[in-house]
Amino acid sequence: MLEITSANNPRLKMARKLQRRRAREQSGLCLLEGARLVADAWRAGVTLESVFIARSFAAGLEQTELLAALALGGTPLYLVEEALLAGISDTVTPQGIVAVAPIPPAIPEIASGLVLVLDGIADPGNAGTLLRSAVGAGAGLVIFGPEAVDAYSPKVLRAGVGAHFRIAIATCSAWAEVETLLGNERQLFVADARGALGYDGVDWSLPSALIIGNEAHGPSQAAASAAIPIAIPMQGGVESLNAAVAGSVILFEAARQRLLIGAGDGTALEVCDPSRD
Amino acid sequence: MLEITSANNPRLKMARKLQRRRAREQSGLCLLEGARLVADAWRAGVTLESVFIARSFAAGLEQTELLAALALGGTPLYLVEEALLAGISDTVTPQGIVAVAPIPPAIPEIASGLVLVLDGIADPGNAGTLLRSAVGAGAGLVIFGPEAVDAYSPKVLRAGVGAHFRIAIATCSAWAEVETLLGNERQLFVADARGALGYDGVDWSLPSALIIGNEAHGPSQAAASAAIPIAIPMQGGVESLNAAVAGSVILFEAARQRLLIGAGDGTALEVCDPSRD
Repeated sequence: MLEITSANNPRLKMARKLQRRRAREQSGLCLLEGARLVADAWRAGVTLESVFIARSFAAGLEQTELLAALALGGTPLYLVEEALLAGISDTVTPQGIVAVAPIPPAIPEIASGLVLVLDGIADPGNAGTLLRSAVGAGAGLVIFGPEAVDAYSPKVLRAGVGAHFRIAIATCSAWAEVETLLGNERQLFVADARGALGYDGVDWSLPSALIIGNEAHGPSQAAASAAIPIAIPMQGGVESLNAAVAGSVILFEAARQRLLIGAGDGTALEVCDPSRD
Repeated sequence: MLEITSANNPRLKMARKLQRRRAREQSGLCLLEGARLVADAWRAGVTLESVFIARSFAAGLEQTELLAALALGGTPLYLVEEALLAGISDTVTPQGIVAVAPIPPAIPEIASGLVLVLDGIADPGNAGTLLRSAVGAGAGLVIFGPEAVDAYSPKVLRAGVGAHFRIAIATCSAWAEVETLLGNERQLFVADARGALGYDGVDWSLPSALIIGNEAHGPSQAAASAAIPIAIPMQGGVESLNAAVAGSVILFEAARQRLLIGAGDGTALEVCDPSRD
């Protein structure tokens, strides 16, 4: 394991730059922080560019196993001072390990099954939580819309807890790109507390997309005009739910319906889609 | 409106102490920060002990209306310097208004309908989010178990966005107290990713309680032995959901079932409960 002792080390400088969205987009690389995220990426078959490790890191059995696996796989490992690692860390309490990983290529073809669209979700925690829920609910694609937070920002990666390596993610810089990905054969819904249609009144066994708007301002004009507003009935004078919670409640209602009819994956779904016959 | 210019002002000192749980429990008071929470409490009929306002606060129409309503209602208002208000504020960007409010008395009788038990939930954001979901899903009571975060900590209040004034909240210092509140006529479920029973396989029209365990360690021994584990089926290799998301997904499945059979409130529920005939 090589040792890095200077903040001017080129690899470390490059990693530091990846805290900014522009640098991530230009390089196609992102930062993974913490043993859990690094292990998740490694298990998912991601080829890590480099892994920076603090002296204090390799204490437990699990950590040692991770390092051994990375080393055996030929991943470049670098031992760095705590203070240097803190410079590429996004957390208040750095977790002693940060990896540089390639951002998976955005898939160009239209996804089958359920699609989640983050239309202007601004909070990284919400975006990561929704990604995790989308994977758990069996969605096939998550689209980050023009105004949404960067899917590969350190905070979104952390909140996603490995979801980034388990689902196709597309980032669109214009709504027209979102529409292309959604295709014409899909029913579009947007979560809206004022919607007249209940989220459980939808037939989620059909190819569908769920759009979640901005936390403060709701869905964009483009999304609102393209999709049917659906609401979660609220009791007790509550006006609305947190965006990540509302999105997750709807995603798992979709999953529940699809599992009931055995449409839990894309293959089974095609059986229910007459347009494919 | 009286003016406070010294950090040693007794009212301000008392408010500062309320940032600690012990002081809240001894005084029966808590801090509400931000215009939204203060307005929510005021609308819910809470008698505010005192309201501290920064000079920069009263800018918009909404803020002016809130202040006018509080003043007309006889609430003691105090103008304070920004720096002094920051001393009783929990947020990085203080919102210019903090109120001292009484903690509602814990209801002693057994609640009807759905009960949520936060068994060791440690993250204030999760606790507040779950409270908000419990209200929206029509639950009748939220119990904070022995190891849970304080329901009236500033962060839980903020994440609850007014939910604290719309549902009965009980804090139990021992599991035996939780059991007393739950009574004997209620089916108990605990969210557990390894549970064999699906959360949608439960008949939520019956009097029920949902227990959510600690984020890292899961449910307590007492909770695990008292309740049936239920799981949300997961796809895509996701092991579990965030505790607040998982709890909310289950709460709204319960609400969905109860609304379908018209058991959305306690009164209607009794019709379905043969033990009450």
